[in-house]
Amino acid sequence: MLNYQLDKTFAALADPARRAIVERLVSGPASVSELARPLPMSLPAVMLHLKVLEDSGLVTSRKEGRVRTCRIEPKMLSQAENWVSERRRMWERNLDRLGAFLDETKPEDGE
Amino acid sequence: MLNYQLDKTFAALADPARRAIVERLVSGPASVSELARPLPMSLPAVMLHLKVLEDSGLVTSRKEGRVRTCRIEPKMLSQAENWVSERRRMWERNLDRLGAFLDETKPEDGE
Repeated sequence: MLNYQLDKTFAALADPARRAIVERLVSGPASVSELARPLPMSLPAVMLHLKVLEDSGLVTSRKEGRVRTCRIEPKMLSQAENWVSERRRMWERNLDRLGAFLDETKPEDGE
Repeated sequence: MLNYQLDKTFAALADPARRAIVERLVSGPASVSELARPLPMSLPAVMLHLKVLEDSGLVTSRKEGRVRTCRIEPKMLSQAENWVSERRRMWERNLDRLGAFLDETKPEDGE
C-alpha cells in the first residue's frame, strides 16, 4: 500500500510542471486558473497534471462555487521525504562504519 | 539541467524494484547478481532497472574482471531529498505565518 503510494508520489514529482504546481501550493491554496497562469501550456494540459497530482495524493482539490481550489497534502510530501532521507542516512551510517573499521585495522604509529 | 536530473531521479524512484536496489546499495556496493537475487524477476529485467538507475545518476557501475559492481551515488539521493525537504519546510513556514496572522487578528481576552 505504502509502496504503491510511493510509486505514484515519485512519478508525480518526475515532471517539471507538476513540481512547479507543488512549489506554488506549498505557499498556500490556489485555484486551477492561478496554477495554470505561469505554466507554458494549455488549461487542459494543466488539468491532466493536476489529475496525476491528485491521484498520487500530493494534492487535493475542492470545488467552491465555480472555482476549484487546490491544496497540498503535506503527509504525502513527508512520506516521500522520509523515504529518501532514511536511505541517505543509511548510506552515511554505512560510510561511518567503514571509516571506523579502517581506523581499527590501521596499524598504530611506531608499531 | 538540475530540473532534467530531478525528472530522472524521481522517475527512477517511482518503482518498487528500483527502490529495493537503492535500499540494498545504501548499505554498500553489490554485484548485479547480488542485486538480482532477492528480486522476483529475470536478470534482464533487473538490468533494465539498473539502466534506468544509472541514467538517473542514482547508481554507478564498474566492470571489474567478470563482475559488474554497482554503487549508490549519494549526491543524487541528496538532491532529491533537498527538493522535497525544502518544499515541506516552505509549507510549514507558510502554516506558521498563517498561525501568527490568526493570533494577531484574534481579539484580546476581555476587550
